[in-house]
Amino acid sequence: MTSTDLVTALRASLGGRWAHVREHTRKEFDAELLLPDPSLSIEAQRDRVNEQMRMLAGSQYARAGFPAVAGGSDDIGASVTAFEMLGHTDLSLLVKAGVHWGLFGGAVTNLGTTRHHETVLPQIISLELPGCFAMTETGHGSDVQSLGTTATYDPTSDEIVVHTPTASARKDYIGGAARDARMAVVFAQLVTGTPDEPLRHGVHGVLVPLRDDTGAALPGITIEDCGPKMGLNGVDNGRLTFDQVRVPRTNLLNRYGDIGPDGSYTSPIENPTRRFFTMLGTLVRGRISVAGGAGAATRTALSIAIRYADVRTQFAAPGSDDEVCLLDYRTHQRRLLPALATSYALAYAQNDLVSLMHDVQSALLSDTPPDEHRQRELEALAAGVKVMSTWHATRTIQECREACGGAGYLAENRLPSLKADTDVFTTFEGDNVVLLQLVAKGLLTSYRDAFGDLDALGTLRFVARQVASTVAERTSARTWGMRLADARPRRPEEGNLLDRAVLLRLLADREQHVLGGLARRMRAAAKPGADLFAVFNDAQDHVLLAARAHVERVVAESFARGVDECPDPAARALLDRLCTVHLLHGLEQERAWYVEHGRLTAARSRTVTGLVNTACAQLRPDALDLVDGFGIPDAWLAAPLLHPLP
Amino acid sequence: MTSTDLVTALRASLGGRWAHVREHTRKEFDAELLLPDPSLSIEAQRDRVNEQMRMLAGSQYARAGFPAVAGGSDDIGASVTAFEMLGHTDLSLLVKAGVHWGLFGGAVTNLGTTRHHETVLPQIISLELPGCFAMTETGHGSDVQSLGTTATYDPTSDEIVVHTPTASARKDYIGGAARDARMAVVFAQLVTGTPDEPLRHGVHGVLVPLRDDTGAALPGITIEDCGPKMGLNGVDNGRLTFDQVRVPRTNLLNRYGDIGPDGSYTSPIENPTRRFFTMLGTLVRGRISVAGGAGAATRTALSIAIRYADVRTQFAAPGSDDEVCLLDYRTHQRRLLPALATSYALAYAQNDLVSLMHDVQSALLSDTPPDEHRQRELEALAAGVKVMSTWHATRTIQECREACGGAGYLAENRLPSLKADTDVFTTFEGDNVVLLQLVAKGLLTSYRDAFGDLDALGTLRFVARQVASTVAERTSARTWGMRLADARPRRPEEGNLLDRAVLLRLLADREQHVLGGLARRMRAAAKPGADLFAVFNDAQDHVLLAARAHVERVVAESFARGVDECPDPAARALLDRLCTVHLLHGLEQERAWYVEHGRLTAARSRTVTGLVNTACAQLRPDALDLVDGFGIPDAWLAAPLLHPLP
Repeated sequence: MTSTDLVTALRASLGGRWAHVREHTRKEFDAELLLPDPSLSIEAQRDRVNEQMRMLAGSQYARAGFPAVAGGSDDIGASVTAFEMLGHTDLSLLVKAGVHWGLFGGAVTNLGTTRHHETVLPQIISLELPGCFAMTETGHGSDVQSLGTTATYDPTSDEIVVHTPTASARKDYIGGAARDARMAVVFAQLVTGTPDEPLRHGVHGVLVPLRDDTGAALPGITIEDCGPKMGLNGVDNGRLTFDQVRVPRTNLLNRYGDIGPDGSYTSPIENPTRRFFTMLGTLVRGRISVAGGAGAATRTALSIAIRYADVRTQFAAPGSDDEVCLLDYRTHQRRLLPALATSYALAYAQNDLVSLMHDVQSALLSDTPPDEHRQRELEALAAGVKVMSTWHATRTIQECREACGGAGYLAENRLPSLKADTDVFTTFEGDNVVLLQLVAKGLLTSYRDAFGDLDALGTLRFVARQVASTVAERTSARTWGMRLADARPRRPEEGNLLDRAVLLRLLADREQHVLGGLARRMRAAAKPGADLFAVFNDAQDHVLLAARAHVERVVAESFARGVDECPDPAARALLDRLCTVHLLHGLEQERAWYVEHGRLTAARSRTVTGLVNTACAQLRPDALDLVDGFGIPDAWLAAPLLHPLP
Repeated sequence: MTSTDLVTALRASLGGRWAHVREHTRKEFDAELLLPDPSLSIEAQRDRVNEQMRMLAGSQYARAGFPAVAGGSDDIGASVTAFEMLGHTDLSLLVKAGVHWGLFGGAVTNLGTTRHHETVLPQIISLELPGCFAMTETGHGSDVQSLGTTATYDPTSDEIVVHTPTASARKDYIGGAARDARMAVVFAQLVTGTPDEPLRHGVHGVLVPLRDDTGAALPGITIEDCGPKMGLNGVDNGRLTFDQVRVPRTNLLNRYGDIGPDGSYTSPIENPTRRFFTMLGTLVRGRISVAGGAGAATRTALSIAIRYADVRTQFAAPGSDDEVCLLDYRTHQRRLLPALATSYALAYAQNDLVSLMHDVQSALLSDTPPDEHRQRELEALAAGVKVMSTWHATRTIQECREACGGAGYLAENRLPSLKADTDVFTTFEGDNVVLLQLVAKGLLTSYRDAFGDLDALGTLRFVARQVASTVAERTSARTWGMRLADARPRRPEEGNLLDRAVLLRLLADREQHVLGGLARRMRAAAKPGADLFAVFNDAQDHVLLAARAHVERVVAESFARGVDECPDPAARALLDRLCTVHLLHGLEQERAWYVEHGRLTAARSRTVTGLVNTACAQLRPDALDLVDGFGIPDAWLAAPLLHPLP
């Protein structure tokens, strides 16, 4: 990692609002302790991660995301940023820390009340009470609202009875459950009333102790180990089955739904579905952290592959004895440089997302009345960025592995664990396909609000259930209207395709066209008596395209804003070219749509690949500076392939 | 695995010329012994693979690929087919067996002569002499012609001295080297003459003993372990460094280049480059076996993911309490069914490839004068099918993992090891990008031969070196001419896109257009004094597109032929629909090209996605039969997720 003025400026621009946290972790994190050791057995990997966890517990980062009342420092953005930096190290640590402090601690913070904050949170911060987050069941993953586990209030003992009614209702894949967690927040269907007249209130979180001080499972709790996984083997994922396990009534995390001493249920939110999604919405930090971790891991992989491509040579050029550097081959530039550009784009989008989350969730902690619009905006952005970042990670780390050939297949060179550890990111904390459906649903809802021309959204009731959070889009009615004016299609033969404004306008125009078409299609199809499942199912490709088009535009705008706001002229000029590569490459991938819809002539479409080629070639001399702009210390990039043998 | 008449007919059609070998392995292979056990440590995995190897050594399959003189049964196609079936089991075994019997045994068979066949081959067949194939070096992988290891004839002792002159010339990633191999065929630059006047003859293979009976490395040989890898951890990959290691002169594999007792070098092939590529060309079996293994692993993954999608439900449909089966969701059909169709396509292409290889290599063994044209045809087809099969494996197994969610991430459900083990297939036995360049080069050479209008192919001298085999295309001048007539473009608004002939014509037309354009571009650019590297490098996307377009057409034709030759009417009708899905999906992916080049109107292009959707939905009821058509016994698909909990 070199530090010229240019690189320093790039790093500052990409660092975002919590750049100081990044700088601090670069100095503080000990690569020796934090990098993965692929030679270890699974149990030894788990031990190593626990050792890393204890190091973190002693640092300021464990406290950062928690309220002052519990000994925290009320700086959510700093917490999530430090967590993101862990994504450059052992990803098992990232996930284990995320489960304990983020999901378990976050649930207690956001769903619990003072009684939990004062007693439980300090033990969570200090890691005295390792915890886990028991939501997913074997039978229900995406459809959390249909969980089978029950939490039934027993007035005779003033206890809640947690129970697993069927084999498929066991909690599954629960990080920390197999070995280390002492307590779980268990998500279960809350039931009050009497056996004859049960009152069902939907899914709530309940604190359930799992193990005694010796680590043995408590009575009524069966724990199984999920065994070896594709990656993240430093995390002890397990299965939990509850047989009539009793906990005090006060173990209910009762911010959004409470049981009084008299057994009566009360909630500030009347509608059970709305209540459920409100609760889940407060847990958005997990999804945001996964997006951040995916981004960091991808930047690690690109740093390794691009640096390798700059030192590795193969084949002499014609008429020469000197072998050609891999990164001088156009094919190799095409494999790595557009991905580098997109990694910058997603990093800027992630910074915007974390900043929004910090503001929204800080307000939540400070008892300011919740701003539902901003909360929905946050959830939609989180879903979209998570999808793009995690699929980008899967594709890009794969490409990096292949671009490093046999060396890339050796564990010592990091790419295997980066690939395997991040692989689950596309399907946990919300399956990417389901999340895209939610983004689209939010867009349609907002479209209706803006134009009032979408009467029959009955089909969307179905989508609405496919949700781990209610999503809406970022764009208010007003900006929709503005964009209608701005993004009015120009003639397909006009506009310089190297002009960033033209490329952004194409993206915005596509988003609007696809969404408008989808809205009309839904309205036309959702006639009385229509088979709503068939209508929804038939439109799937349209639904997913609408969501993608939206998120791609939002991410591109984050990048463009980041470029414009970069104060250093040389860095800004370089970022501008990088942004063009990101946009042009996106256009190349999607050019069929633009030609089919009269936005590009066939003749202009044919030129796009050549434009990407040239832009990549022009970026090649800057590739190492751009990698250094990621700001990953050399010690964190320990990969022998970066040091070629004589 | 059910066996209705339809399924039996599908299996017979897909089984190809060695369907009887497939049937036999289905009964013979013991899943208990042959499936991977992900809970084992690396050393235990290696032990297990050795146990599996001993089982194979006692079977007819080890003998099948070897000549009768050595106790073999002269049935190369049977050998490669049985090897392909191992691709459904532990892929470490596939690779270890492939290295020992295929690469090591194949090199001794094809590069050695009677003295090696009679003495060494029987010990190879029986596994008494475990061997490895020491070609790749740390510094040279794709560019094998530039290997650094030397093999210098010493007339004073009548020995060959094998030596590693630089650190980067160590042999690397060598399967079997770290622990088990007793002998290596070492590829090295052969030198005769005197130290003052050395005579260099290019790369040759030399048999070098590595270990004594106790397993200790012999003097002058340093062996290192490559350590943990992304996958294939049952294979003991290692590094070999030779310090002036002496072996008898007769250890030279001397079919294509020999040293006489007087120290003089002779070869039936004068030109050293041509000699080198001829030698390598005989080793094409490794590449073909990798393609076969990739195909089998992909079919295993699809069988798991599609069966899971048929039993797994999530979310109730609107107005219903019944949850919807994943495979009834259009998004899920789109993720899995086109990949299923393409897996059939590639399986037919692989059958054609193995059949051609059997004929060409059987002739080689029987001392029939080699048919260079067919040998080149074989190498081109092998390169193309290997590229398509291995990238298809990488993409499809990834998709299958994601389509199975968290369950797909657990090792017990097989997908993690299928993904990790096959990952290296895209870069070993010829890096896929380099192989595509070679396919294109062969096409251009043949284009020039056919039309005589391509004068300045100087740029291709550069491509020619990027080769582990000389490649040419399958199509002689005559069929080029015929295709010109057949594939004459129709008007872009004509032709039924559900008509297989129309879809095939589009593919053939595209191939011809892209190749013709590339040839003209090369001719125009390769002026005297031109920077040949720049010319070649600038045209890379065009080069790769030409190769892809060619291979896609060849694979599609294999599939179409397979459909037409299926004797069972019901199976033929189903395969016909499946072939249409493969072709339509390919068209969808590449539709930008067709519109840009006036082969499709924008309006027709817009309909393609809808056609794929409908074709997938129509295929959905047949999905399980098609999976059963792969003929993978239930015991080989041991994955708990296929048995949902109540």
